Formats: sequence, structure tokens, C-alpha cells
Amino acid sequence: MSEDGMARLERLNSMLKRRSIILPAFEIHGGAAGMYDFGAIGGRLRNRVNQMWLEHWLSQGDVVEINCPTVTPYSVLEASGHVGEFSDFLVSCSKCGEASRADHLLESHLPNPDSLGKDELGAAIVKYQPECPSCHDIQWGEVSAQNLMFNTTLGAGSGGREAFIRPETAQGMFTNFQSLYRHFRQRLPFGAVQIGKGYRNEISPRQGMIRLREFNMGELEYFIDPEVEPSHDFSCWKEDIFSMLPDGQDAVNLSIPDALESGMIRHPTVAWFMARTADLLLKLGIDGKRLRFRQHESTEMAHYASDCWDAEIEGSYGWVECVGIAHRGCYDLEAHETHTGQRLKAWRGWAESVERKRTVVTIDGATAGPAFRSGAGDVKQALEELDSVPSTFPFILKLHGGESVEVLEEHIKVEERHEVINGEWFTPHVVEPAFGIDRIIWHLLDHAWTETEKNGEPYSLLALSPNIAPIDVAVLPLMEKGGMDILAKNLHLELCSLSGILSNYDASGSIGRRYARADEIGIPWCVTIDHQSLDDGSATVRNRDDQEQVRVSIEEIAALIHNGGMSERFS
Amino acid sequence: MSEDGMARLERLNSMLKRRSIILPAFEIHGGAAGMYDFGAIGGRLRNRVNQMWLEHWLSQGDVVEINCPTVTPYSVLEASGHVGEFSDFLVSCSKCGEASRADHLLESHLPNPDSLGKDELGAAIVKYQPECPSCHDIQWGEVSAQNLMFNTTLGAGSGGREAFIRPETAQGMFTNFQSLYRHFRQRLPFGAVQIGKGYRNEISPRQGMIRLREFNMGELEYFIDPEVEPSHDFSCWKEDIFSMLPDGQDAVNLSIPDALESGMIRHPTVAWFMARTADLLLKLGIDGKRLRFRQHESTEMAHYASDCWDAEIEGSYGWVECVGIAHRGCYDLEAHETHTGQRLKAWRGWAESVERKRTVVTIDGATAGPAFRSGAGDVKQALEELDSVPSTFPFILKLHGGESVEVLEEHIKVEERHEVINGEWFTPHVVEPAFGIDRIIWHLLDHAWTETEKNGEPYSLLALSPNIAPIDVAVLPLMEKGGMDILAKNLHLELCSLSGILSNYDASGSIGRRYARADEIGIPWCVTIDHQSLDDGSATVRNRDDQEQVRVSIEEIAALIHNGGMSERFS
Repeated sequence: MSEDGMARLERLNSMLKRRSIILPAFEIHGGAAGMYDFGAIGGRLRNRVNQMWLEHWLSQGDVVEINCPTVTPYSVLEASGHVGEFSDFLVSCSKCGEASRADHLLESHLPNPDSLGKDELGAAIVKYQPECPSCHDIQWGEVSAQNLMFNTTLGAGSGGREAFIRPETAQGMFTNFQSLYRHFRQRLPFGAVQIGKGYRNEISPRQGMIRLREFNMGELEYFIDPEVEPSHDFSCWKEDIFSMLPDGQDAVNLSIPDALESGMIRHPTVAWFMARTADLLLKLGIDGKRLRFRQHESTEMAHYASDCWDAEIEGSYGWVECVGIAHRGCYDLEAHETHTGQRLKAWRGWAESVERKRTVVTIDGATAGPAFRSGAGDVKQALEELDSVPSTFPFILKLHGGESVEVLEEHIKVEERHEVINGEWFTPHVVEPAFGIDRIIWHLLDHAWTETEKNGEPYSLLALSPNIAPIDVAVLPLMEKGGMDILAKNLHLELCSLSGILSNYDASGSIGRRYARADEIGIPWCVTIDHQSLDDGSATVRNRDDQEQVRVSIEEIAALIHNGGMSERFS
Repeated sequence: MSEDGMARLERLNSMLKRRSIILPAFEIHGGAAGMYDFGAIGGRLRNRVNQMWLEHWLSQGDVVEINCPTVTPYSVLEASGHVGEFSDFLVSCSKCGEASRADHLLESHLPNPDSLGKDELGAAIVKYQPECPSCHDIQWGEVSAQNLMFNTTLGAGSGGREAFIRPETAQGMFTNFQSLYRHFRQRLPFGAVQIGKGYRNEISPRQGMIRLREFNMGELEYFIDPEVEPSHDFSCWKEDIFSMLPDGQDAVNLSIPDALESGMIRHPTVAWFMARTADLLLKLGIDGKRLRFRQHESTEMAHYASDCWDAEIEGSYGWVECVGIAHRGCYDLEAHETHTGQRLKAWRGWAESVERKRTVVTIDGATAGPAFRSGAGDVKQALEELDSVPSTFPFILKLHGGESVEVLEEHIKVEERHEVINGEWFTPHVVEPAFGIDRIIWHLLDHAWTETEKNGEPYSLLALSPNIAPIDVAVLPLMEKGGMDILAKNLHLELCSLSGILSNYDASGSIGRRYARADEIGIPWCVTIDHQSLDDGSATVRNRDDQEQVRVSIEEIAALIHNGGMSERFS
């Protein structure tokens, strides 16, 4: 980062804290690294971004919202691979004891140290001899893998079970697959979103809102049949050109439909979510010139993924991954199916049914009935799905519910059946757009923050889109007396009572100072109640961005703010 | 619970699960007690209730929303009293090892076992000899206190710090007090809300959504000056009569302003939040006849609280506390101030200033400047606040930042000052309405669920208020061909694209079955696209509650649903 950039970042952070937008969490108690509060202004900004994110995806017509617990049993995250794989490599300084991320130490020596394994990192530390960031000595211990999940215990006493606070929201959509499939009446494609907290016990959090220990994220899991050609309509994106970095190559400028047609984007549904993601980011207020799409190189991608693109946004910390859009194949559903024995599949009906003869193993009701009682139906189902007749007895049969039973020869009989088959079960593929909401909020603030001068003094403005501005309007009585205060208070309360509208009542200091305070936190409109208001029921409305002023009847103001019609008064 | 009630509860729970409203969490992995998922329908219900809750409080004009991390350092919860006090009493069965809550075992023997201490519980178990709910033996170990917070570790390696997942949202408002006070330009009263997850590692969760290990909650902390008479306007609640149970006595029916005037409610701001809470609950759809207010008895209340009322709602589990409204005095801010040394006070300006002579200890700049350097200002401030001149040197002086310095005699000088004092610092009092959001959602479902008959078959209806109905409208093509499907899909997408509106497209089964499915999850309107729609562009709109039908032009439907005008077509 340049010195100028660093100084701007410091001024921005100081404004965010002073104006109750984003503050270091628990600061009066000494703080906690990698954790922030959204304050009086930031809390509402966060909520508005969350709600716009949700509305954007629900408006698609085939997506629903779910919400699951964050404390998650061990077995769920073992199935998902997080218990085994979700680690960073840590190395401790033998002198001062401070733990560092091994790849961070090597950033000035190697291009992509985060792609290295444990042994490679150890060798590189020996070779490049990086200093300890804390004590500046060079005495490193062994590199070791550190799981990034926060651990906890579910339940009290000796009955407590190992658990984690979730590292992402996605698992809820997979564990709910059967319920979602039922809700959508067994018809693919469909999707589910979840927005909420995610947790990573980072070894050394840094870069403000970019690398947090507790963060806001939103994920969409979109389930598709891999054998059905998707029918996405890309016509409205033909003219929208983005900077794209395909598979480790240089940037090219082209539209998303063109990138799909050329084969650069490998799947239409991935392209669809890239286009819809760009729409959302621009609607929120991200500067389109500072947005690009970068494809993961094959070495960077998980083994099961067939394509993955990051939406990167440029800001004070350079280009930062804010959204990842990945085609994850059938990995997740299969993993949970394997660990639980529950069927996480969809049914694919065939256009024409097929007849076939098959040797079927089934139960002999006379013996299996008494032996398995109410479980006999499950045993029958599992037996009939066997591909071949068992050759040794007794044998262990795994049921769909996950348990196993011992089956004797007398429990079964073998039949030749003539079957008509009109479809098959298959594991849906999933395309996952995953959003770092805090990173997006950070860049909205970073892009909106404009430093200028006014009367020779520094002046700053938060040019947030009115879609997400935390406060919609400020009501300012010129003086807090003579009835101006009452008129202003009443208008303020009328505005606050409108659904989705928030007003700020500010009576302290000169009108100029109050305008400046409103501009600094991005309030699009200021309404000043003055002497004339008492005479003719009008007020001065001032626009944040060009500071123009017009006179508007107070009676009309609430409706104009509510239906977004105020801008027209300024044209 | 009666047998009928139990059977109804079972049918309701089964519907909630089948229709993706509320499901046991992690069920394919064997589940986790005290944890639920909000599914495809429930996720949106939860979001709507959350947003209505937020809007209700923000509309007050002096309340803001904040959002803080859930993982919380030890010191914060030590200051709040949760490390020491937030416990239940546990007793383990010596036979089977199962842990039980000691008070739960005694519920059939004693009226209020949850108010007993450790020794009293131990004695009562010896006296009443309750059975172990798990193995039915009677061999109990010692009663012990079990802290209810989920524990975790912040940070990796040996540098990790002990932390908890928050048991409530309130602490964020206290730790942010300085920032909130600045935001409100140093003027009381003001409030801040936070809505989000809270966590209690219950010893034995039970009663479905009533006692959860991870729950949704919302709290409002409203800061007031105890010496200023509140100016709440109660005029619109004069006619609203509620059932009230004052201080352990029998129920009386009266209005909130009357209960305040009679002294039953002890503080106007407590009464104000009771009235505003009742408004919110009724707006959400709680049955007013099944809502009451119960005052805490003095033995039940925390020592610092001066009044506390629960809003209780009656449902399948009897009367359940869903909201607590407490006057907490200055307890919380003082506790954090004591633990951090940070000033968590507000300034009270006096109408008339007072002149006085005072002996002031201050720094001797010539010696203290070099000794304390940049800290000299802090030392000066702390010295000048001393009530008396120190008699022994060196002495230890505590600064506002929490650190201490050693002060020598040469560092100070004593002055006689003539001071004009125009106000004073004081700790604001706080009134806290705290909402169990899941408990409210549970009762909304419980009250809305209506079992009837139709054509001799059982039929059920979820008569949710349209304010919170998870899906606003269902679009049903009579047949999925002939253009009816296209017309229906287009209307569905148009509806979903409207802000705040969600449509459900359902094409499976007979229209009668589809109406029944829509009624079961509380969709207020069904739109059927039929042959006539293709000819004249009209559709049948059906109302959930009286099943009346009218013909409406398809072009108008989106606007009517969006602006809430559909009901008028039915009058």
C-alpha cells in the first residue's frame, strides 16, 4: 500500500469509528483481534445489505431462505471435510512464542505461498529465513496444521459432545436437502440461501474487515441435474463488459455470455450466477470499474470442483476476493450421504420406460417378519436394492436409516422379476455462490467515501446508494424553539413510522455543521425546518450529492421520501 | 398437558416438519437436542418477524440498531456477572450417569423449585426422592452449579484466550455506550437494539422451541436519566385492557396507564415498553386473549432491578414467558465501568450553575511533564478529580484508561480554585425489553394453526397475519400446458421481483390439493390461471380465510398484492 493510501485508510477507519459505523469490538475491555461491531449507523447498513442480498436471490422465483444453528456437531463437519481439511499452517517463534501463519511470513519471497503444503512451507522458511513479525528474531519451530474452527461442547457434564461453531453457512443447505427437495415438489433446479454468521479462528487476523474471526456471510446452494441442459436467458447481459482473468492468464474484457460461449466459463449455471452477482454488486453501489472476475487455476481449486470464479473488488487493500462462485459437482451431498446412510438424491424420470428382467433378493415374510418386526420393511427395501445374491450367511445388511442388521439365509428368498423402470435416482450437482458480506460492506464504504474541500477545510462525503444508505433523511430544526422544534419532531416521527424509512433528528450546532455531519454518514436528504416553515408549511430539502436545495411542502415530504420521488423535485 | 393437547401438539409438530417450517436440526446426522432449523417456509417467517421487530422499535425515532460479535472475551462476561452467576443446578444419577436439572426433578413436589439455592435443592432431593427420568432409579450424587455458557477459545496455539458464545445480546449495547452517547449527541433518553443469536448450553433442553440451546433473541436497552420525569404519552392505550398479575397476586384486568397510575407498574418507562410490546405482539398476530403481563416477585428479581414484568403467552405448553421488561437501574453500566476503568456516564447540565472554592491537586508541569510525557494529560485529569490531597508519597494513581501510575510528591502541586460548576456526570439507568423471538414465532404458529374438516376429511389452515405470512401468494396454472404454464410462470416471476413479496409456483396435483397445501402454510392468496385467463386475461383469486373467490385482471394482481389492496376486491 502506498503512503497516501495508508494515510487515507487511517482517516477512513477513524471516521468509521467516530461516526458509529464500524468499531473495534469490546474496545473498552481491551478489544479482540479480528472482531468488529456495527454501530448506530453501521448496524442499519449491515441489515440493509443483508436484506437486499436476500431479496435479490429470492426474486429469482426458485430460491428459498433457510436458517440453521451455528453450533454444529462434530459429525456434520467431519462429513463436510472441515474437521480434516480446514486448516492453516502455523509456525511459532522459538524466541518470543508468537504464532504466525507460515504462508504470511513468505509473502515477500514467493508468489503464492498459500498454495504450499506443510513440508514445502517448512523448507521455504529454512531457505528464506523470514523475521518474526513480533520480535524480529529468526528462530522458527516446526510448521504444523492448525484447524481454523472454534471448538466448543454441546451439552453439560460427562455427556457433552464435541462441536464447532460453523465455518460457513453452506452445510445447512446440504443437511436440509430432503426437506428442500420435498418443498420444491421434487423438481430441479432449485436453490436455498442462508445469510448469517460464520467463524474462523484465524491465527493472525489482519487487514481490518477483510480477515475476521467472526464474519457475516451469505451462501446460495443451487441444485441442478447434470444431464439437463440449463435454460438460462443471457440476453440482457450481452452488452455488459467485465474484466476477466481466466485460469491464471492475463485480463481480457468481455461479456459473460461471450465468455461462456468461448468456453472460458465452463458451465452455463456458473455464468448465470456470475451475471446475477454482478447485477447485485452494482445495485448495492460497488464501482463497476473496480470489479473483476478471476478464475481459479486448477491447482487452486478443490479436487471435486470443475469451475470456480471469484468476484474481486479493488479497494484500499488491493484486489480482494468478495464472492466465490463454484461448481462443486456432487461432492457435498455424496459426502453427507456416505456419512449418514440417508438418501440425498433426486429422481430423474425417463421419457420412455425400460422393461427388464432382474434377479431380486427380498425377504421371506414368514421368517423375516418375526425376526425384524417393524423394521422388516426397511430390510426388504435394502435387500431389493442389492446388485447380486449374497453368497455367505449370515451377512450384515446396511439399512437406509444408517443402522445395520444381521440377515440369515432363512430370512431371504430370491425371485426373478419383470420390472418396468421409468427413471433413476441421482445425486444433484450444486453451484454455490458464496458471499463475504463484511468484505462487500467494506468496499461499499471504501468506494463511497469521497474527500473534498469546502471553504478551504477538508470535507468528506459518503456517497452511498440510497438503496442502502443507513439513514434516509435528516430533519433539522433551524432553532429548537418557536414551534420549529415541534414541527421538526413531528416530521421526524412521521418519517420513522414509514416502513423501511429511518430519519435522524439533529438539532445541535449550526445548519452548516449539521449538513456536514449528515453528508459524512451518507444521508441522501436533509430537511430544514425554518421560520418560513411556520408561515407556509414548506421546508428546505437539500440533496447530499450536489448540495442543491429546493423548497418542498412539509405535507408531501414523507410520501416523496417513501416512494423515492424526491429526486424528481430536483430536476 | 391434556391428552388432547398432547395429540394436537404432535400433529402440529409433524406439520411444521413436513412443510419445512421448523425441523429438528442436523437430523440426518442424528440430531442435536435443543436445536432447530427454520426451513424453506420457516426461514422467511423468521426473517419477517425479525424485520417487523426491528421496524417497530426503530419507528420510535430514538432507537438505533447495532450488531456485535457472538464470540465474547471472558472479561466482558465476567464484568456482566455471567461468569459467576449464569448457572443452573445439575445433579447426576449415580446409576446411569445421566445429568438432570435439579429443579426439574422437583417440579411435581414443590411450587417454584427454580428459585431454590444449591443446598435447598440438595435437601429437597433427599426429602422427595424423585426418580431419574432416564433409568427410574433413585441414587443421586451431589447437586452442583453448571455454568450455562458455551465455552471456546479465541486465537490459536498457546496465545489462545478463554471466551464464550454470548448468552444474550444486551452486553453489546453496554460496551458500545460511549459510541451510542456520541451518536445521540449526548442527549438522553435513547435506545439501541440488537437482534441475533443467543446461546445457553442447557443441561436438558425440552419443550421444543421453548428451551433451546441456540435461539433467536432481540433486546432493547433504553438509557434514561433517573432524575428526569419521562414524558410518555399513554393516551392511545387508555381503552386497551390486559390481564395483569401483580407481584405474586391474582390477575386483574386493567389498562397499562391505569396500572401505572395505581402504582402497580413502578416506572413510566417500564409501562411505556409494556404498551409498545403489546402493540407489537398483536400486530404480529398473537391472540390478545392469550397474552398477559406478570410482575416478578421481589424474590424472583435480580437485586439491582426495581421492577420487572414478563409478557406471557398461552399456548400448547401453558403460559410461557416470551418477553421480559426490566428496570435494571445503573447496574450494567456501572459493572463495565468498574471492570474497565472507562467512563460510562452521561452529563447532566444544571439549569443554574454553582460557584465554589475547591482545593485541587494537579500536576507540576516542570516535573510531571518529563516523567509522564504524553500521559501527563491523563495524570492531570485523574489528579484533579481526587477528593482530597494525598498524604503519603509515592502513591498509585488509577487513570481513566484503566492503567495505574506511581506519583511522587514532586510531580504535584496543590491549588485553591474558584470553580463554576454547571452540571455533573451520572450513570444512566436502563430499561430493557428482552424478547425470545423463537418463543414468539412458536406461539404465532400455535395460535394460527386451525384444524377443521372439509368434505369429511381433516383440513388444516395456518391463519397467519398477512404481515408475516412467509409466502404472500401462490400462482397455480390449472394445467401446465396450452400457455397457462407460461402465463403463470410470468406472473410468478413478476410477483417475486417486487420488493418484500414472495410467490410460490405450484403445478402439481389437483387445484383442490394445491389450495389445501397453500392453506396449510398460511398463504393468504391463491391465483389460478385457467382457460378463461388465456381468453380475457383474468384469473381466479382465492382468499385463504373464507375461501371466497373473485375474478381479477392478471395485469392488476401484482400491484394489488404489493400495496395490500387485494382484500378490497372481496368486500
